[in-house]
Amino acid sequence: MINVGVFGYGTVGSGVVEVLTENASLIERKVGDKVNVKWILDLRDFPGDKHEKKITHDVKDILNDPEVKVICETMGGTGAAFEFTKEALKKGISVCTSNKELVASHGPELLRLAKENNCSYKFEASVGGGIPIIRPLQDCVTADEIEAVIGIVNGTTNYMLTKMTNEAAEFDAVLKEAQKNGFAEANPDADIKGYDACRKIAILSSLVYGKTVNYEDIHTEGITNISARDIKYAKALGLKIKLLAKYEKLDTGAYALVAPHLVPVSNPLYHVNEVFNAILVRGNMLGDAMFYGRGAGKLPTASAVCSDVVELAKNVGKNLHCDWVDEPVKLDGLKNSKKAFFIRVGAELKKEAKENFKVVKEVHLNYYDEYAFVTDVMTEEEFEAATAKVGKLINYIRIEK
Amino acid sequence: MINVGVFGYGTVGSGVVEVLTENASLIERKVGDKVNVKWILDLRDFPGDKHEKKITHDVKDILNDPEVKVICETMGGTGAAFEFTKEALKKGISVCTSNKELVASHGPELLRLAKENNCSYKFEASVGGGIPIIRPLQDCVTADEIEAVIGIVNGTTNYMLTKMTNEAAEFDAVLKEAQKNGFAEANPDADIKGYDACRKIAILSSLVYGKTVNYEDIHTEGITNISARDIKYAKALGLKIKLLAKYEKLDTGAYALVAPHLVPVSNPLYHVNEVFNAILVRGNMLGDAMFYGRGAGKLPTASAVCSDVVELAKNVGKNLHCDWVDEPVKLDGLKNSKKAFFIRVGAELKKEAKENFKVVKEVHLNYYDEYAFVTDVMTEEEFEAATAKVGKLINYIRIEK
Repeated sequence: MINVGVFGYGTVGSGVVEVLTENASLIERKVGDKVNVKWILDLRDFPGDKHEKKITHDVKDILNDPEVKVICETMGGTGAAFEFTKEALKKGISVCTSNKELVASHGPELLRLAKENNCSYKFEASVGGGIPIIRPLQDCVTADEIEAVIGIVNGTTNYMLTKMTNEAAEFDAVLKEAQKNGFAEANPDADIKGYDACRKIAILSSLVYGKTVNYEDIHTEGITNISARDIKYAKALGLKIKLLAKYEKLDTGAYALVAPHLVPVSNPLYHVNEVFNAILVRGNMLGDAMFYGRGAGKLPTASAVCSDVVELAKNVGKNLHCDWVDEPVKLDGLKNSKKAFFIRVGAELKKEAKENFKVVKEVHLNYYDEYAFVTDVMTEEEFEAATAKVGKLINYIRIEK
Repeated sequence: MINVGVFGYGTVGSGVVEVLTENASLIERKVGDKVNVKWILDLRDFPGDKHEKKITHDVKDILNDPEVKVICETMGGTGAAFEFTKEALKKGISVCTSNKELVASHGPELLRLAKENNCSYKFEASVGGGIPIIRPLQDCVTADEIEAVIGIVNGTTNYMLTKMTNEAAEFDAVLKEAQKNGFAEANPDADIKGYDACRKIAILSSLVYGKTVNYEDIHTEGITNISARDIKYAKALGLKIKLLAKYEKLDTGAYALVAPHLVPVSNPLYHVNEVFNAILVRGNMLGDAMFYGRGAGKLPTASAVCSDVVELAKNVGKNLHCDWVDEPVKLDGLKNSKKAFFIRVGAELKKEAKENFKVVKEVHLNYYDEYAFVTDVMTEEEFEAATAKVGKLINYIRIEK
């Protein structure tokens, strides 16, 4: 029997317990041994919960139990989660997690600690919720040079953009509704400002490189500037606005970026709507492959955590290698990366806009107070320079191919 | 250095050599050792080819070379490919393949042989071309009960149906054009009659079960009955016709099926067009995840074969377990599976149709010689019985949710 401890009995943690319990016989077949939830760590009590007796408030109960071989860290954050994970790994207990903040901040350090102690650290659920993406990147697309990883990796913003598109609604109204329906947090900054997506693309690009891409170095724009007018322009262009988390390797250098993009119907990400997530992986031989599914939610995320549990339970006492070393890598290719931009300026700046940008298409929607257009393909650096000359844009959105 | 032999220097085989050569340094990093193509088996000579000197016509040159640790079987068919694979495995040489016929016919036997000889048999490229699907099913979605696997797994038919949809063209015209463009074979039966998709869903459902689903037991309908009129009706219903290869586990029993289906816009398979493939995997916890990409083609397929080479090269002398034993399993749940049908009958049979089917929607397109309608959800058995009473349908298409 493989005994498991669960750190944090919140949404994901209770989902993990549910999956391990409900699918116990199937998981036993996969592992070749019973997997048993022995302990649940939480500050709260859960009177009446059917796993009530497994709850402890003291992490030592779990860490000092020699029967515990695997821990699911579903606490979140980089405080206690970090300390407890380190202590577990030091004792040779494998840990799997859904905690993207912790993986993005301390992933390689924890991977090294796991290796030193003949155990493993796994984080399939940290990106894309239930969608298998960490394992496919590490173990499936192994014969290809990865040229790009482009994801819709935040369900809240994708839900909001889908609503804005379908209902021609304004950002604030949709945010309020999303909060009411539980699709957005009371403090929505991590989602709408792109921070969550930023951590996820930091993890994915680190895995592509095998070195650490610091999430703080990633240029990150959220969707807070996207208005109902932008959506109307997007429709007029036959495009959809999506918050993309991108990693791309160009001859001029690699970069990572989180920003809203206009996506054409020919791109499979165009069709990823509502709370769904998808990650497109471009290999130099494979071409584009896309991984699609539920990027959040209790059971899908728990499913991914438990797929790690299965692998860890099959490999107790062994280190599962992860090709990500604790060495920083700077991705400074953004300024030289080329793309077209959709731009809106005040009507009074039309002349300056036409002088400084190569306008390939004007978009007329009877908003006489502004001038909207699509530029030719240009570098980010050229875009910055032209923008400075024009003075002030109402908004701009990058166009994805 | 890990030496590799390639059996068959056709489209996929030459792609494998190209991937292993072009991406050599990346593959070396992944494997931790150089991977070298030492031999290529083909009946033909390739004068002027840069790998000309590696060509042999005699399989013994390869099988008797103790330096060869991995073989890529990209010959196809179940004759020589089967014999050579068995001989290789008996000598402890691991084999990976893109050969779906061989895997569907003899997969578990070859897996057993590999196990007995401390080597491995891998077949990522046998389904979905470049799309990672075998590994995700085996190693990623491991904590879920798989409730369904629904794929567009044949690029030729998807290309043809896309063309018919976009251009309102007839089947024969599109087939001719596909043959001219190299998207369909001179003898297109394997594709258009669904045989290719049948082998692929046999492999996927065997992996779900861990036992052998015989492809000959799978009810298989191709797309040869799909006409321009069907496409027009589909459009009127807001649906798209897709050739789906399905495995589904119901309370009333599991089944596998290959048949054209009407797919709604809310299903992500609706958006899979042209030669692209996608496989939707439904887990009881995960919900729907979809794997999308190029289901065929030289380099995408070779990319998948080479991902197997990477894994085999890292595990020389070891058996990589595959949960598929040589034991037959009968999936007889089709007759009790429920769905709605779209049905067309001659106008003279309208009364009989309305008497025997529960019509929930009529579709009127000014074809006065026929009567077209959508049924309520019914079992396949009920459908058969009602059809027998009506006498003759012009066509029928199952409706997917």
